[in-house]
Amino acid sequence: MRIHTDLTPTGPYHGVVVLIDTLRSCTVAPLLFERGLSELALTPSLRSARAAADEGWLLLGERQGVPPEGFNYGNSPAELAGLDLTGRRAVMVSENAPRYLERVEGADRVLLGSLYNAGAVARTVAATADADPDAQVTLVCSGFEGEPDLDDTLTAGVLAAALTELRRSRPSGATRFALSLLRAFPDPLEALWQSVAGHYLRRLELERDLAFCAQVSASQVVPQLVERMPGAGSAPLYRFEALGAPT
Amino acid sequence: MRIHTDLTPTGPYHGVVVLIDTLRSCTVAPLLFERGLSELALTPSLRSARAAADEGWLLLGERQGVPPEGFNYGNSPAELAGLDLTGRRAVMVSENAPRYLERVEGADRVLLGSLYNAGAVARTVAATADADPDAQVTLVCSGFEGEPDLDDTLTAGVLAAALTELRRSRPSGATRFALSLLRAFPDPLEALWQSVAGHYLRRLELERDLAFCAQVSASQVVPQLVERMPGAGSAPLYRFEALGAPT
Repeated sequence: MRIHTDLTPTGPYHGVVVLIDTLRSCTVAPLLFERGLSELALTPSLRSARAAADEGWLLLGERQGVPPEGFNYGNSPAELAGLDLTGRRAVMVSENAPRYLERVEGADRVLLGSLYNAGAVARTVAATADADPDAQVTLVCSGFEGEPDLDDTLTAGVLAAALTELRRSRPSGATRFALSLLRAFPDPLEALWQSVAGHYLRRLELERDLAFCAQVSASQVVPQLVERMPGAGSAPLYRFEALGAPT
Repeated sequence: MRIHTDLTPTGPYHGVVVLIDTLRSCTVAPLLFERGLSELALTPSLRSARAAADEGWLLLGERQGVPPEGFNYGNSPAELAGLDLTGRRAVMVSENAPRYLERVEGADRVLLGSLYNAGAVARTVAATADADPDAQVTLVCSGFEGEPDLDDTLTAGVLAAALTELRRSRPSGATRFALSLLRAFPDPLEALWQSVAGHYLRRLELERDLAFCAQVSASQVVPQLVERMPGAGSAPLYRFEALGAPT
């Protein structure tokens, strides 16, 4: 299996794509399914999210650290971890990973990855490689405001290491760069703390979220893109379902 | 001063640009001037280099670790450090940094930077900022075969830290990412050793070059682009002269 890594999204992408946004949307996504959610839609558009609310979807999201008017919850995993969402559907608005979903529309398979579900994502990707020995996976880091960031690069390293342990792999140069950070940051929380996204959350006094997002492979849930749904105006909603990861 | 960093070259660039290729061309460049060289031309083209040899330029360069036919020397700083090049001119061929010089042609000022001359480059850039408080510097990492690599990213961090110490600075996201590696790699040799470029040189048994290139601020020479000269065919030669850095 060939493992590519992009420290910021380029695309368009093909093959298997893991979209990484460690702080915080790709940590929140598996968490919501653990709390009982049946369907999750991601969008960068407040307007598309509000339109979905009329059809009974819960709204999650923040602008500058605060849920916008009419939203049920923010994006804080530490806060969301206590909810019972059994059977509910939710739309999550975030300015990071959802902005890049357009670029992965052409991929065969799109998974959401973070430290939180790293092991489960790696097992899911490895199972793909069994069906296709020439399989190619691209680890797409969301970064922060268009620039590479330490949190997602470290997560790409953790995912690449887990994949390499499971299957014979050929890591690209950027993947090897990400792998080289693992020994330098033995405590993932330190990397999240030092990252630009981490500084942003610390200014909002959301240190608890850093601790939550630093948990490695605590979740067995792998959110997978199943459908692009029309949203309000030009911004679509991307609907995800939870895969149970192969054991 | 605003400090941007590109982990691989994009461009075209404006303002002040520091082109970074730690392993090895931007370490070799200041070293050659220290050994007495009067002029240095960089090119990615063997043909352009050979044409210059007819006019008395020395030829330096390697393909797969070996000097091509008719070349005087390779690209190994450990080997070149013993030469007396007083008053000579040399053309250096390398597949890394010289490939990207076309993209920095529009910049006000182009310097070559590495760990080896980091302090001198930082002082030179800081002096620019005194004349223009809105100055913008871009640290352009060559990377390895089009992908980001640890050696140049760490060097960007070292340069950004030195600049930030000298002048009030606003580092971009990617610059902060590079800065975050400094504490994780307190020994720069470890970062060069782990880098993809470092692995390549280790396979060629050039570990001595890694040790040479890991010296921080050992040189006071800052190579600055002064002229684009026509080369053979379509590949130009980029001529550099040595600046003495401000003290």
